[in-house]
Amino acid sequence: MSENYELGSQLREFLRGLVGEHGGVAWGPRVKLAGLKENFEGTKVKPYTVTPGGIDNLALHSTDVFTVPGRGEFSVDFKGYFKVARDHPTSTDWTKFELFVNIIDLKLFGESKDLGEIGVSLNPDVLSSGQIFPASSPQGSAKCRIATGVVFDMPQLGLSVFNKEPILLMNEHVTSIPPVDDPNGHALLFMLPLFDRANPSGKAVAHLTSLRYGADNYLSEAEVKSIQTRSVG
Amino acid sequence: MSENYELGSQLREFLRGLVGEHGGVAWGPRVKLAGLKENFEGTKVKPYTVTPGGIDNLALHSTDVFTVPGRGEFSVDFKGYFKVARDHPTSTDWTKFELFVNIIDLKLFGESKDLGEIGVSLNPDVLSSGQIFPASSPQGSAKCRIATGVVFDMPQLGLSVFNKEPILLMNEHVTSIPPVDDPNGHALLFMLPLFDRANPSGKAVAHLTSLRYGADNYLSEAEVKSIQTRSVG
Repeated sequence: MSENYELGSQLREFLRGLVGEHGGVAWGPRVKLAGLKENFEGTKVKPYTVTPGGIDNLALHSTDVFTVPGRGEFSVDFKGYFKVARDHPTSTDWTKFELFVNIIDLKLFGESKDLGEIGVSLNPDVLSSGQIFPASSPQGSAKCRIATGVVFDMPQLGLSVFNKEPILLMNEHVTSIPPVDDPNGHALLFMLPLFDRANPSGKAVAHLTSLRYGADNYLSEAEVKSIQTRSVG
Repeated sequence: MSENYELGSQLREFLRGLVGEHGGVAWGPRVKLAGLKENFEGTKVKPYTVTPGGIDNLALHSTDVFTVPGRGEFSVDFKGYFKVARDHPTSTDWTKFELFVNIIDLKLFGESKDLGEIGVSLNPDVLSSGQIFPASSPQGSAKCRIATGVVFDMPQLGLSVFNKEPILLMNEHVTSIPPVDDPNGHALLFMLPLFDRANPSGKAVAHLTSLRYGADNYLSEAEVKSIQTRSVG
């Protein structure tokens, strides 16, 4: 390889260090938050209808399966919330709209007999972004994908791990926007590596092998505050 | 959000600009190339056997399906090669080894009636990295995953597009290392966004909706040189 290539690589490595070991990445477009209204408990959603832009505060649950080398496989149930910024749609036609989303906050809590308490939070070093795709007919399902970056804190193991490849949350059976009380979400993944925040350039210390999730009801402001201030460990 | 958070975000954005719009990301560990022998035509592989580290030059073919908004869906056949650096395995036991790989070069060429000639090359701004997982029994299949970043050059459309989320090449039926003459590869993806290199922060200009691939025979040095020097447009 040429000296210029080498120098370029070294410069990139150096700057990458400044940006943060995790990369500092946006997986898709950033949704402008200015002018988007926050939606809480009491918000109604209509099926098969393109909802105007907003910021949804929704309860969230998931079941994640991890493998940890030398320790085995563990299935953990999580509960918490996520805050999703939905941009204004390009059309109100259920079969034509284009709509971008960002997850701007996420907190989940779970407990495992073997791994102890686990907290999940949004990784601030990546922009978790996604899109809702229109249905092919007026009573058909829309489809959703969100590339998500999180941190799993496992205080009992003294570990805090994160994903470098997105956890692709998806749902091919979306009948309302947002998909409230919809248990059909899953992550499209295969042995997704999770890296130690204390040694981010090292090899994976765990793998995420399965994730199923559901978006639940709108939360009150007080419920959101209560979840936001909770922590593990 | 606090002023410190805002300042941190702005600083990250600024530095990200210096690093390169594409992020400058490593999706997994870097394989050290020093001491790894390049393997060409004539190299033999034994089934169900953990091969010592090396750099494989293999023919590669794929069938990719793209959707381009306003233009429709297109299936394109590609042929070319990839160069894969395989690290030294941690064990010679087919049921226990751990082995990391990087794709360090990739070139594919295809042609579509509608989209014209298309060239695929490795994205130099990301480290395409992966792992081969051991089988659960001596005659069982190993599994492979490689998170891959590429650039699709479409000169007829005046477009050069790239993926920000990895294209996850995978194969759950690996019976030799490397998987020579193995047509069983596919990418695990759902509407993977492809971004315009001329406007990387904009919305996706195409989506990759399906990718199937096969790793073929070892190539001669002359064949590799010939593919490396070919270009589209």
